[in-house]
Amino acid sequence: MLLCDIGNTFLHFYHNGKIWKEKPYSLTKKRSDIPIYYISVNERFERCLLASHPYCINVGGHIEVESGYAGLGVDRKAACRAIDDGVIIDAGSAMTIDVMDSGIHIGGYIMPGLEAYRKMYAEISPVLDRSIEMAVNLANLPQNTTDAISFGVLKSVVLMIKNTSRTKKLYFTGGDGKFFARFFENAIYDNTLVFKGMQKVLQKHI
Amino acid sequence: MLLCDIGNTFLHFYHNGKIWKEKPYSLTKKRSDIPIYYISVNERFERCLLASHPYCINVGGHIEVESGYAGLGVDRKAACRAIDDGVIIDAGSAMTIDVMDSGIHIGGYIMPGLEAYRKMYAEISPVLDRSIEMAVNLANLPQNTTDAISFGVLKSVVLMIKNTSRTKKLYFTGGDGKFFARFFENAIYDNTLVFKGMQKVLQKHI
Repeated sequence: MLLCDIGNTFLHFYHNGKIWKEKPYSLTKKRSDIPIYYISVNERFERCLLASHPYCINVGGHIEVESGYAGLGVDRKAACRAIDDGVIIDAGSAMTIDVMDSGIHIGGYIMPGLEAYRKMYAEISPVLDRSIEMAVNLANLPQNTTDAISFGVLKSVVLMIKNTSRTKKLYFTGGDGKFFARFFENAIYDNTLVFKGMQKVLQKHI
Repeated sequence: MLLCDIGNTFLHFYHNGKIWKEKPYSLTKKRSDIPIYYISVNERFERCLLASHPYCINVGGHIEVESGYAGLGVDRKAACRAIDDGVIIDAGSAMTIDVMDSGIHIGGYIMPGLEAYRKMYAEISPVLDRSIEMAVNLANLPQNTTDAISFGVLKSVVLMIKNTSRTKKLYFTGGDGKFFARFFENAIYDNTLVFKGMQKVLQKHI
């Protein structure tokens, strides 16, 4: 089964336990007799997929999760379906943090992704146009601009997740998920989380 | 004495205890016989001031603060000069957080300003193009997109400042300083902090 998760930067594919990502405007040809089951949060990139492959099925309508949250993105729903209890952090273009409790989604929030942070500083002032230093010391106050920015970004993400987590297990996914997972003891990194949720739903419906 | 603090969005003026801000490309005429003592973090806007007034004196070179921090902006230095002990939060285009201890600057960091956050979300996806809801409840997990974004921004700023503050007093300044001050018991809002620091230095040198 070929699965696809269309995000705001990349299209992520899953086939036989393997995952890979492709840029929307340079999608590779897939075997035309295989259907692509997909979800999407980006209409423009969805059109790219539809133009590249004859047999695509949007399964977003089937991805449901019990929640009082209005407007939960379909990718967040899919990841939540994969986990009954825990905090799910999808660190991509945006960083979404969702809390699952006994199979119910009890709320969540959105932070900017790392690349969005970097761009934002650069737009405020050329002086702040720096790469984020991933190894910045979060225990001591910074002593230069690069560290000051990196500390501002990374520590605020870490403090937020700590504050949300309490005793719950943390499940990281997304491009920067592996990096953030290392700040926590109770963390698992699983870049197939969205696809696991999709599979769970598809097994019921197909 | 007419003082000016040139930032990355506005020029802030101070005269006889009054402060006001002006946009760089629509500066009002000032009495031409009065000198403007100024500091600047934005060269382009500095040229706007110089073009608008015949008698401007850059006092940035005199603003010194004991610190191991390389590249501390002159506006941050000036605000630090006004406070011997405490955490100084200047919430403008960027949000700078600096810690003073017995007259010595012991480090600091930089977060995006509120407007930068708002723009950043909008650039990630049109779905995230929302105003920040200043009254969002920071105690409960959000249940919709606007709250999810607002919670992500405001709570991360509040947690960072709490983590830095510990027992120290908090001094807020800048456009969004008044708003953030209300989240803390040990907070003072003073939108003249940079000018107080400038005055302190000028009294010595002029």
